[in-house]
Amino acid sequence: AGTPMGWYSQGSALGGVNPDLASERQTPSFSVEKLTALLDGGEENTRIRRAVVEAIESDPVFSRENQYFQSQNEKYEAAVRKAVHLQKKMHEMGWTENGPEFKYIYRALSGEVAFLLHTVFMRSISVLGSDKQITKWIPLATQYQLIGSYAQTELGHGTYLQGLETTAVFDIATQEFILNTPKISAMKWWPGDMGRSATHAVVFAQLDIQGKCYGVHPFIVQIRSLWDHSLCPGITAGDIGPKMNFDHIDNGYLMLQNVRVPRENMLSKFCEVQPDGTYVRRGSQQINYFTMTALRVALISHEAVIPLMKACTIAIRYSVVRRQSKLKPGEEEAKILDFQTQQEKLLPHVAAAYAFHFINNYLEDLFNRGYEEIQRENFDMLPELHAFSSGFKAMVTQYCASAVEACLRACGGHGYSLLSGLPSLCTRILASCIYEGENTILFLQTARFLIKCFMAASAGHPVPPSVTYLAAVKPGKCPAKNKFDFLSPDTYTEAYQHAAVRLISSTAAKLQDLIQSGVKKHDAWNECTVQLVQAVKAHCHYITVKNFAETVERLETKGGIQRIMKHLCDLFALHGIFSNAGVFLHDGYISGAQMDMVTASYLDLLAVIRKDAVPLVDAFDFTDKTLNSALGSYDGQVYQRLYEWAQKSPTNTQMNPAYERYLKPLLHKKLSKL
Amino acid sequence: AGTPMGWYSQGSALGGVNPDLASERQTPSFSVEKLTALLDGGEENTRIRRAVVEAIESDPVFSRENQYFQSQNEKYEAAVRKAVHLQKKMHEMGWTENGPEFKYIYRALSGEVAFLLHTVFMRSISVLGSDKQITKWIPLATQYQLIGSYAQTELGHGTYLQGLETTAVFDIATQEFILNTPKISAMKWWPGDMGRSATHAVVFAQLDIQGKCYGVHPFIVQIRSLWDHSLCPGITAGDIGPKMNFDHIDNGYLMLQNVRVPRENMLSKFCEVQPDGTYVRRGSQQINYFTMTALRVALISHEAVIPLMKACTIAIRYSVVRRQSKLKPGEEEAKILDFQTQQEKLLPHVAAAYAFHFINNYLEDLFNRGYEEIQRENFDMLPELHAFSSGFKAMVTQYCASAVEACLRACGGHGYSLLSGLPSLCTRILASCIYEGENTILFLQTARFLIKCFMAASAGHPVPPSVTYLAAVKPGKCPAKNKFDFLSPDTYTEAYQHAAVRLISSTAAKLQDLIQSGVKKHDAWNECTVQLVQAVKAHCHYITVKNFAETVERLETKGGIQRIMKHLCDLFALHGIFSNAGVFLHDGYISGAQMDMVTASYLDLLAVIRKDAVPLVDAFDFTDKTLNSALGSYDGQVYQRLYEWAQKSPTNTQMNPAYERYLKPLLHKKLSKL
Repeated sequence: AGTPMGWYSQGSALGGVNPDLASERQTPSFSVEKLTALLDGGEENTRIRRAVVEAIESDPVFSRENQYFQSQNEKYEAAVRKAVHLQKKMHEMGWTENGPEFKYIYRALSGEVAFLLHTVFMRSISVLGSDKQITKWIPLATQYQLIGSYAQTELGHGTYLQGLETTAVFDIATQEFILNTPKISAMKWWPGDMGRSATHAVVFAQLDIQGKCYGVHPFIVQIRSLWDHSLCPGITAGDIGPKMNFDHIDNGYLMLQNVRVPRENMLSKFCEVQPDGTYVRRGSQQINYFTMTALRVALISHEAVIPLMKACTIAIRYSVVRRQSKLKPGEEEAKILDFQTQQEKLLPHVAAAYAFHFINNYLEDLFNRGYEEIQRENFDMLPELHAFSSGFKAMVTQYCASAVEACLRACGGHGYSLLSGLPSLCTRILASCIYEGENTILFLQTARFLIKCFMAASAGHPVPPSVTYLAAVKPGKCPAKNKFDFLSPDTYTEAYQHAAVRLISSTAAKLQDLIQSGVKKHDAWNECTVQLVQAVKAHCHYITVKNFAETVERLETKGGIQRIMKHLCDLFALHGIFSNAGVFLHDGYISGAQMDMVTASYLDLLAVIRKDAVPLVDAFDFTDKTLNSALGSYDGQVYQRLYEWAQKSPTNTQMNPAYERYLKPLLHKKLSKL
Repeated sequence: AGTPMGWYSQGSALGGVNPDLASERQTPSFSVEKLTALLDGGEENTRIRRAVVEAIESDPVFSRENQYFQSQNEKYEAAVRKAVHLQKKMHEMGWTENGPEFKYIYRALSGEVAFLLHTVFMRSISVLGSDKQITKWIPLATQYQLIGSYAQTELGHGTYLQGLETTAVFDIATQEFILNTPKISAMKWWPGDMGRSATHAVVFAQLDIQGKCYGVHPFIVQIRSLWDHSLCPGITAGDIGPKMNFDHIDNGYLMLQNVRVPRENMLSKFCEVQPDGTYVRRGSQQINYFTMTALRVALISHEAVIPLMKACTIAIRYSVVRRQSKLKPGEEEAKILDFQTQQEKLLPHVAAAYAFHFINNYLEDLFNRGYEEIQRENFDMLPELHAFSSGFKAMVTQYCASAVEACLRACGGHGYSLLSGLPSLCTRILASCIYEGENTILFLQTARFLIKCFMAASAGHPVPPSVTYLAAVKPGKCPAKNKFDFLSPDTYTEAYQHAAVRLISSTAAKLQDLIQSGVKKHDAWNECTVQLVQAVKAHCHYITVKNFAETVERLETKGGIQRIMKHLCDLFALHGIFSNAGVFLHDGYISGAQMDMVTASYLDLLAVIRKDAVPLVDAFDFTDKTLNSALGSYDGQVYQRLYEWAQKSPTNTQMNPAYERYLKPLLHKKLSKL
């Protein structure tokens, strides 16, 4: 029933599939191929995706074979090489930016490619630039006649854009802007591709015209010579040094000292400085707002859900190959996945990977609808889209980051080896909790929206469809009578809804009480933020469970997919209740006795899903080269691969000067005394 | 009131203390020096510790300045150099292994030194070897006439020692043991110092005499020549490659092919093979058992609590220097520690660092008492000691690993830079959850003890004093009437006790029900393991809270220390209830309304402790060199240091071949067309 091994592990010479792993694939309760097609949104997409992956993986320039042995410099060089080569490859393969293959390229490269900020550079010009600016700069950038970066964040300033300190003073005499870094905290810090690659950057700075500040605006600034790559006059730039991951990206710093750019270099779709210094604002900036939210949605899949799927694939496959201790006296050592604790460490995360894949589809649909509306100049959906993208970006990245780490820990010592592939997934996904909006700040943005909607709903005003549930506050109790009742999606979805409404309404009440008791509004808000974050998480959890249940309902039963997805949905939902029991027990909506039923059903499900664990991760359809894991390959030849790969490590292939320098004198000094 | 800046930041040339940080130190509610002395167990210890740290840090060989820029090979070389130099240093300084300075050396080196397994090699010989063996090998090892490793773990076998596959067959004819690695999974894998350094190893293998297996025994095996360090005949060994951390250690692999060692090389304090092949077992192995438990206790402080203290110091200091967003309209941007969410991310972990420091003292006392008993040949305390060391090792490392990661995340983008010092703390502490017993397995060992004690207590039999509370199952309700009642240690300690008893008793009941319903004992155990782990965590949490409360009670009030420690104890306890609300709400011991009181008191405490946050971490008394963090230094010159350090990165000091190879042709090809 599985896909042929050839697809997954191209050219492994280690022998056949480990028999412990092979036996797991013998009787799946569903068709793995059909589940893969469901995840891809259709068989045609699966075909295209596989073709892209195959083309990339068969090309030695894109090899990730030495990834775990490379220095920061080597990784950077490889990423630049890949980015440059990709242009050629796309041309050869006939892949275009609007073609169906495009979205799979980044996935096939596992994101290990340079010049991502070049894309952001271009997008910012397309969105914020005038037609004239677009006509001038976009073709240059498209043809790599320059390499762009996007310089927003400063050493002392992240998410709070109004606080940026870089200045751009308009000089009427020369019709130029003079850009400066007035103090160290104003230095641009973190922009990707800027440390060693970029020739240009969109630099955000406080616009000053004749002593009046007009706020933050974007300017195109050349930072390096196109001819010899030397820094331009007045520019200080470099790499910010080693990070927990993303070594392949040259995140950089940038200082500007009286750097002059012509008046035409301020991106001026929405605001312009006229030759006489008059500042003109025009049109709506809301579309820019939309671009940021779209970016947050886009990263959910690539930077959170797919990494979680990879980690689950590695950990599940390893857990049926690894044997440890005896489960029953007299038998051989048991597969570690047969231990309840191991199932509990991993299977809820497999379920979560599916849950988040489906919520990502939901968000993409929401955004496509939003985009259509915006093209009709209707911006009504923007607050909802912003709230959803912020809340789900934060919730999904946070969950996935913890889950990937749990997968690593579940693999014991071998998970801790870089060769398992898990440490790099783990350190990379951690960044997704910080970039594109730090998660706590994003949760609180969603909180503002929810509190506002709750107030509106309470007052009988209309609210967006996704939050109409807030109007329906009913105390009530969970009707479940036995553990089987908790396998009803209506039962658990209502429990989640109840919990979300309770947390939002009680925090709204606390907020109002504080304000009415004389606490200033902003202080009152601050005093509620811990609970507001909880409330937003409950809201996002509810929507995720509801969407999963609805997705399952819509599935055709063919190939047993609906049945197994129903189990996963149940598991995801009950794991959430089990792990956040306090939220559901607090007002007695779920009683202690009912919580025992939840626990019983939850633990039962682990044993049920255990049987299909391997087919469920096989369906994610990652090749061995994509996983790049000694523990997670399709054939399960874990120990052979660890040994083979370790031998390629520079610690074995390079000289050991420590012996000559320190060990030999030590040992010989003593020997001579013998 | 604080200690002079000179102690912390030796020779910073960046200017004075950042005023935002300085203001935090102006009015501490207690004496920082006195708190430091309390943590050290007396002023004399503080003095000795500082002297050791100063001696180590002033020695350039021990410098960690380039730590974040080094390759695995470079780190290994530095660690070997340090280990060799340390011998000389100890001699110079007059530090001995029995002296008061010894315990501070590893701390002062931040554990970045080679040959730790050499110590384990020696300890295993001292404990498991005969007097003759000790006389022969220990002096050689002490004088570094050989470098030892400890080869227990295999590629396919970790915690379950009985499963080891390496064989040692006794050859009567030659009076030798013949050691073999019969299959790939039997290869020794992970032993420290073995990949490139060790000349000898204690190898654990299944003893076979005339076809009969006698189980796992330790053998001393030479693996490398003392003269030229080449591998001995029949030996294959090397480094296992890159890991998530511990790059400075050459964790290695070892294969044995018909390697012969004389009969005298089997460590034979407890069992011996006589010349005619007779196997003799003698004495008690329980002392060995004790050594393992002592090791687990020892690592709690070094590998979990101290790293957490470091992470807290870095994150708290940074959080009063970093400003982000406005808390109040019209004011300047706020210190991020003034946001409730940031306080909630960090302050409970500061409290936990103190809680775990005190529980570590408790465990050390317990062990010292246990050791005295054992020396009197009384082994009664061993099960309790084993259970405590296992449970607390697992609980504390797990909590600290999460907390260190939370500190990293709380520092936003800059926390993600290696230069913050947080990523290396984070990746290193993660390993502590796996080594010296994987945490889940350890929790379940403690569970066996607790279930046994619970059964005994229920039947009226005597149990060790630390678990007599299990006999006192009383349903009852929490008597708290308002939020202030939850600031009473009796109130929350009783709540924790109640929760622990409930979880242990209900899981014991489930276990019995399953067995009575016909489920086999081992299957029933497996089906209870998720809940057993929960129960053990509740037990350890209870003991930690109780011990913290008792410690506070014993504190003299001098210098306001008792008052601030009381706040921290309250915070630790209420954070635990807030974060594990379900456990307390489940049977109604704490009601929903009372949980709201807990939440209110918990959030109030954050604001109270916030005021002393910086003095509380200053009291941990880490020097800047120890922290090695651009964000966490005593003077708070965060941005200057990030910039200075980044410039030393090889990404800025080495050539950029990527430009010549890939970027130049790309840009020039286009330029030539212009």
